[in-house]
Amino acid sequence: MRTRAGVVGFRGYSGAELVAILDRHPSVEPWLLEHRAAAETPRPRGYRTHPRIPCTPEAVRQEKIELVFLATPPEVSMELAPALLEAGARVVDISGAFRLRTVENYLKWYGGAHTQPSLLAEAVYGLPEFYRDRVPNARLVANPGCYPTAANLAIRPLVEAGAVDRAAGIVCDAKSGASGAGRKASLQTSFCEVAGNFSVYSILGHRHVPEVLQNSGLEDAEFSFTAHLLPIDRGILETIYCRLRPGHDAASLVRIYEERYRSEPFVRLFEPAHVPDLRSVCHTNYCDLGVKVDAASGRAVVVSVIDNLVKGAAGQAVQNMNLMLGYPETEGLL
Amino acid sequence: MRTRAGVVGFRGYSGAELVAILDRHPSVEPWLLEHRAAAETPRPRGYRTHPRIPCTPEAVRQEKIELVFLATPPEVSMELAPALLEAGARVVDISGAFRLRTVENYLKWYGGAHTQPSLLAEAVYGLPEFYRDRVPNARLVANPGCYPTAANLAIRPLVEAGAVDRAAGIVCDAKSGASGAGRKASLQTSFCEVAGNFSVYSILGHRHVPEVLQNSGLEDAEFSFTAHLLPIDRGILETIYCRLRPGHDAASLVRIYEERYRSEPFVRLFEPAHVPDLRSVCHTNYCDLGVKVDAASGRAVVVSVIDNLVKGAAGQAVQNMNLMLGYPETEGLL
Amino acid sequence: MRTRAGVVGFRGYSGAELVAILDRHPSVEPWLLEHRAAAETPRPRGYRTHPRIPCTPEAVRQEKIELVFLATPPEVSMELAPALLEAGARVVDISGAFRLRTVENYLKWYGGAHTQPSLLAEAVYGLPEFYRDRVPNARLVANPGCYPTAANLAIRPLVEAGAVDRAAGIVCDAKSGASGAGRKASLQTSFCEVAGNFSVYSILGHRHVPEVLQNSGLEDAEFSFTAHLLPIDRGILETIYCRLRPGHDAASLVRIYEERYRSEPFVRLFEPAHVPDLRSVCHTNYCDLGVKVDAASGRAVVVSVIDNLVKGAAGQAVQNMNLMLGYPETEGLL
Amino acid sequence: MRTRAGVVGFRGYSGAELVAILDRHPSVEPWLLEHRAAAETPRPRGYRTHPRIPCTPEAVRQEKIELVFLATPPEVSMELAPALLEAGARVVDISGAFRLRTVENYLKWYGGAHTQPSLLAEAVYGLPEFYRDRVPNARLVANPGCYPTAANLAIRPLVEAGAVDRAAGIVCDAKSGASGAGRKASLQTSFCEVAGNFSVYSILGHRHVPEVLQNSGLEDAEFSFTAHLLPIDRGILETIYCRLRPGHDAASLVRIYEERYRSEPFVRLFEPAHVPDLRSVCHTNYCDLGVKVDAASGRAVVVSVIDNLVKGAAGQAVQNMNLMLGYPETEGLL
Repeated sequence: MRTRAGVVGFRGYSGAELVAILDRHPSVEPWLLEHRAAAETPRPRGYRTHPRIPCTPEAVRQEKIELVFLATPPEVSMELAPALLEAGARVVDISGAFRLRTVENYLKWYGGAHTQPSLLAEAVYGLPEFYRDRVPNARLVANPGCYPTAANLAIRPLVEAGAVDRAAGIVCDAKSGASGAGRKASLQTSFCEVAGNFSVYSILGHRHVPEVLQNSGLEDAEFSFTAHLLPIDRGILETIYCRLRPGHDAASLVRIYEERYRSEPFVRLFEPAHVPDLRSVCHTNYCDLGVKVDAASGRAVVVSVIDNLVKGAAGQAVQNMNLMLGYPETEGLL
Repeated sequence: MRTRAGVVGFRGYSGAELVAILDRHPSVEPWLLEHRAAAETPRPRGYRTHPRIPCTPEAVRQEKIELVFLATPPEVSMELAPALLEAGARVVDISGAFRLRTVENYLKWYGGAHTQPSLLAEAVYGLPEFYRDRVPNARLVANPGCYPTAANLAIRPLVEAGAVDRAAGIVCDAKSGASGAGRKASLQTSFCEVAGNFSVYSILGHRHVPEVLQNSGLEDAEFSFTAHLLPIDRGILETIYCRLRPGHDAASLVRIYEERYRSEPFVRLFEPAHVPDLRSVCHTNYCDLGVKVDAASGRAVVVSVIDNLVKGAAGQAVQNMNLMLGYPETEGLL
Repeated sequence: MRTRAGVVGFRGYSGAELVAILDRHPSVEPWLLEHRAAAETPRPRGYRTHPRIPCTPEAVRQEKIELVFLATPPEVSMELAPALLEAGARVVDISGAFRLRTVENYLKWYGGAHTQPSLLAEAVYGLPEFYRDRVPNARLVANPGCYPTAANLAIRPLVEAGAVDRAAGIVCDAKSGASGAGRKASLQTSFCEVAGNFSVYSILGHRHVPEVLQNSGLEDAEFSFTAHLLPIDRGILETIYCRLRPGHDAASLVRIYEERYRSEPFVRLFEPAHVPDLRSVCHTNYCDLGVKVDAASGRAVVVSVIDNLVKGAAGQAVQNMNLMLGYPETEGLL
Repeated sequence: MRTRAGVVGFRGYSGAELVAILDRHPSVEPWLLEHRAAAETPRPRGYRTHPRIPCTPEAVRQEKIELVFLATPPEVSMELAPALLEAGARVVDISGAFRLRTVENYLKWYGGAHTQPSLLAEAVYGLPEFYRDRVPNARLVANPGCYPTAANLAIRPLVEAGAVDRAAGIVCDAKSGASGAGRKASLQTSFCEVAGNFSVYSILGHRHVPEVLQNSGLEDAEFSFTAHLLPIDRGILETIYCRLRPGHDAASLVRIYEERYRSEPFVRLFEPAHVPDLRSVCHTNYCDLGVKVDAASGRAVVVSVIDNLVKGAAGQAVQNMNLMLGYPETEGLL
């Protein structure tokens, strides 16, 4: 019998992507957990259907749901996680509820009190490339944000290798497709407002900033982060600017990435002469990196791309699930 | 002093287009009539501003607004039109409130009782190419719908010339950009649902059907009309299929159109070997026509394109205004 | 050891889709057959690579390639097919080279002489829903065109059940994404010409017309087919208009489709109140159908949608391969 | 009689935009100068036509063309400009042929020898906001590049006011619509490659870099410039990062811009709480600016948007023409 994995928030873009990925996973069966009823889109005869139960501890226990994905807003995740864990399920939370390390930071960046401080302390940050050892035994995994996934995979190896002049500040110019804003009725994300347009929607104050600082090694460095809205449905491209410390150049950066990611299945490096675009990663769980350096001045530009719904959400969540349940890490993701 | 023309519904797509066209009109000054207050989009220093007054009979009379455009839903148009006329303004209504000829038809297709039957009887249908004589003296002009404008300009000359076998039925396969659905928050018209998609949203029951039948000469012929949603912001293309009566072919259809539209400034005919696309008309007040005939079977295909916000709404409304106020018909529209 | 399937034309959109689908097939391994060398797009370290050999009979025989997909123009397919068959490989041809039943028809619609008349006679038309019995033993399968796949699946059940008044003529208004034009440098398919545009590119003379007539049961009925270019990359939606014979209505059409497609894994029927859009089928091998009837007049509208690169090309080709090689028909396609 | 202005390269996107703008100019009549014959797109009856003559000194002299716009590649501009000037016409060149100050810089960044060094020395850089005094008497105006226009209008006031810490380096992350690549058949700019994609196409080596350095006041400061391709047809958004010198903050930056641009008709400043997007400037000659500062660290982000075909090319060219011919600077541009 296949393992049962529940999905709360299956109508949203990340939740629907999760169900689609799990449908192709040979060892896991997706179950829909109904948190709030909603009108259904009509489906044709023959459409693939999934078992659906209420999102209650009783139903989860009775149906032997082993793991639950929360594709819900942070407040809902804080509300649901304790009861689901109590019911014996393990939890991968896709929201920002359990990503920051302190309740103070949560209050500052998410604008509300954290109601589950002990779970915040317990949660494991699910970026496998850097926290793989801690994921398998975690009860609660905080799945990384989309922007921080692309930023941390690009920045952390360089910081760890001492290649970045942190005092000079780092700029991260990020662009995301519209699915990053979630599935909802809103004038701002209506077709006629977004199509043929391009806009900045957050400058220097995005809630993903502290998540990058605490996981990239940048800590308290100056980090200028701007988020833009692309007129496409999915994909994130980040253009990252930094100054290198003496002794570093394009070749050394390539070497650092190659050594760090040699055995990583989901991080790929372009040859120095080329940089990745969104097409190379959309609908995949890859993060692709490219790098260019101005030798004279030591300025470096790193380009990092992911699909915000896959490596930036549902795909990475399944990667974490695989680690938690003992399946091959790439199962269902290639 | 320039003539003052009021715009109600200036935040919507048709209303905003109206203001933009009037801004370039040498003899008319747009005034914004505030019907319901709403949050404003931030505007930069130096942004062109317009006089703004409440949409009340007193304000309209006091500020000497000569003509008012109603870019509002039909219910609101029925509510506002009587008072504005009473205040001495003439009215061009962009909604469907005054387009059909009978209250029975209005009830059937718009799903509500018509509250102004005498105005319905008085209103002039503002398709200048066919009702030009009646527009100059009208107090109230019913500006045609977007789909009927493209359909009637394509079909009526052929019907009048006896070229169409009405008994064989006519098919009109219509495709429209998303601005046709209006400016509002809605999941159905959100970017991620529309982008990369194409869908049918009305089959055989669109409320524009009776407007075509009563103005194209088709009367009670079988008319199969389907409306599709294009992943673009503006533009309508209609592909119209009919069977020709004996003696007609591509050359005779071209001749009919050329004779009928020789002195029309806003209807253009492509040479038989080519057909128009949306690019040829977007952001203009033109309706472009193309035609192809299968000589053996007498089946004809007519392609009709307009910009739904210009010839299908705001541009045609200004064309009507020009006729009503005695300006050159093309003023502000070329 | 997995079966080796070769792909010629792997740089085109259909060819690349084929390789991607085969990558997920548990029993088959894609090999790239190099017909003409071309500059390569740079790929990152860790990019999935495939064995690549020249497209010669020797190489195919030596490497034990069991089946070859030709994602090539018709002239190239006619050139390559005989040698590959001679080398012992079976062939699924995605071009139009072997779809029509007579050399006369090929000459008329494809504008060139057919150089392989005996293979044309031997080829099996690979629409599994109607020719499933003949595919398993075929040496050469002519994979159906994208437009005919959507049209035939919609029309043929109704014709076979005697529901369609063939004498009244059938209209098929077809809209396709830009990948249908193939991967090439061309001003007509450049981004700035296609984006925000919508155009007709073939009226009454498309080479897919005879393929529909000969496989849908329409035979010599009047069939008005128009092809439009959508500003999206993939997907076909066809809106089909016909008149029903007495005794037929929406319910009987639904019944006909349900009976005909009950055990078909890749054809789905929407409930009468709804119709499918491109989102329901893109990136899948499904054909979704919706139907609406005007009871009074007996006019019917059928909406048929597929992904032109999957059910309209690469997916259906793999479906045929599964039948030819004895794998479950849906393997690699769900 | 209206002044005659010739357009060479009228089939390209900038050239076509020029003709469209001139069509609305009350005092100027566009003439098409045919440099190389090419196949014509079919046009409908009634389509606005323009006088067309060969691009030769004789024809220009005989038809009394007073000013010629060169919407051509740099090599062609270098070839045509001398003869046109000799024939008595004044020239606005939209290419990069005459923008840089030295032949050495031209050779380095454009990769070819400059064949007209004396014209290079004579040419006036046509950024009216900073070189307005010199334009009226110029024989040859070098119309600024699209990226430099957006960058220089954002950066130069801050540098002149001493607000920017030049030693800390400036980052300019630029995103442009696809029309910036010109009108041509190319796989890289084909619809299926660009739609749904987003890519970097130039890092640290774009030929517009020296044009910014020499006109923004940055001179030899570190300037990290990256150019990205947006999946839209027109519009440029640049996100510019710099460090402020002590004593400067958001309020002082707003003050600097307001003072500098108070009487400029085409530069607009958003209030500090908001930033402009492409919609606010597309199809207009405006450059809109927004600014945000992190008070603690003194890091500033400036957002600058233009329509690359208008303020970034054809619109600015007409603005220069107005200055050269003594018309009001905004004529035909509002």
